[in-house]
Amino acid sequence: MLKLYYAPGTCALASHIALEEAGARYETVRLNFKNDDQKKPEYLKINPKARVPSLVTDRGIITETPAILIYIAQTFPAAKLAPLDDPFGLAKVQSFNNYLCSTVHVAHAHRMRGARWTDDAAALETMKKKVPKTVGECFALIEREMFEGPWVMGRDYTVCDGYMFTLTQWLGGDGVDVNKTPKIADHFKRMGERPAVQRALADETREQRSAA
Amino acid sequence: MLKLYYAPGTCALASHIALEEAGARYETVRLNFKNDDQKKPEYLKINPKARVPSLVTDRGIITETPAILIYIAQTFPAAKLAPLDDPFGLAKVQSFNNYLCSTVHVAHAHRMRGARWTDDAAALETMKKKVPKTVGECFALIEREMFEGPWVMGRDYTVCDGYMFTLTQWLGGDGVDVNKTPKIADHFKRMGERPAVQRALADETREQRSAA
Repeated sequence: MLKLYYAPGTCALASHIALEEAGARYETVRLNFKNDDQKKPEYLKINPKARVPSLVTDRGIITETPAILIYIAQTFPAAKLAPLDDPFGLAKVQSFNNYLCSTVHVAHAHRMRGARWTDDAAALETMKKKVPKTVGECFALIEREMFEGPWVMGRDYTVCDGYMFTLTQWLGGDGVDVNKTPKIADHFKRMGERPAVQRALADETREQRSAA
Repeated sequence: MLKLYYAPGTCALASHIALEEAGARYETVRLNFKNDDQKKPEYLKINPKARVPSLVTDRGIITETPAILIYIAQTFPAAKLAPLDDPFGLAKVQSFNNYLCSTVHVAHAHRMRGARWTDDAAALETMKKKVPKTVGECFALIEREMFEGPWVMGRDYTVCDGYMFTLTQWLGGDGVDVNKTPKIADHFKRMGERPAVQRALADETREQRSAA
């Protein structure tokens, strides 16, 4: 059975939502970042990058959100989570997901994870200060140039939607007003009404023995 | 016909190599970053993110390296540039490419493009100082945990190889000694001997009327 390693509040939610949308049989393992679970030797065997998500399959382990999302879409084709038979359509999905992981998520990470790129406390503060602008510009670009509506890719719901929802959740903390991008604000509301999204969120906030 | 927008010295080389390996018919358009060509209105119509690469197809435009690489692999299946019929194998390719774009390239970008994330001159200097460590750690991890040999994914050459070659080129400038990762150093040397790689590099360094 598939097993998803995740931590609450992280981009792993996108994979969690995709598994729910796919109707997959899977289990989850929650990591506690406050305890640095992701840096413990037992987890580094799963993912030596010390990050989430990691998806354990019967063939081996997959990391990196865009890779996991397409894998889920391909493994559960009946759920129609990506245009699998159309290389151009799939490229658009991939392009969007890659923009989220390599630009939007990275802009966001300069608020809490700036120590990845500098050891200087004053520099960290200057990075934090720019996050509302950089993340805000990313979402403005998505609203203006990428979001087709009603879903990210247009008529059909895809794995892009759960991924964008995940990053949209972070906007408040990033100092960005989601209402400046009304299409994305509406998308966020509609995503929150999807049963699959609600199940993934409920699982991530549920009390767990392992978290006690 | 496919058309690749690129700038010399950028990650667009990975797509350029893939097109050569695929035996694709394509043309290239070179941007001059010193003239800020990527920010000019005519290019923003191609790619509103003001980045390279962009691949123009008869269906529309694709951006983001991992998306372009898989599109090329799917469009030219005879070149066998990715395990197209194996979702797990494809996920491993994607996972590797995503690590390059969202972690390795981002670490590198803090040397020259730090102004994306801070407006403070002193902070920029502290970022630059950490690049040898962050990029060096990424390549050490690739050498230790990801690189299968003789190619990135093992026996078969894939689009991952041209992408890793592209980032390996930057190591000297990043203050990282490639010889600390001997498998990657050997890969870099073997990549440089491939005719497709030589053709892509020759095209990117050729004198052009448009650059005059």
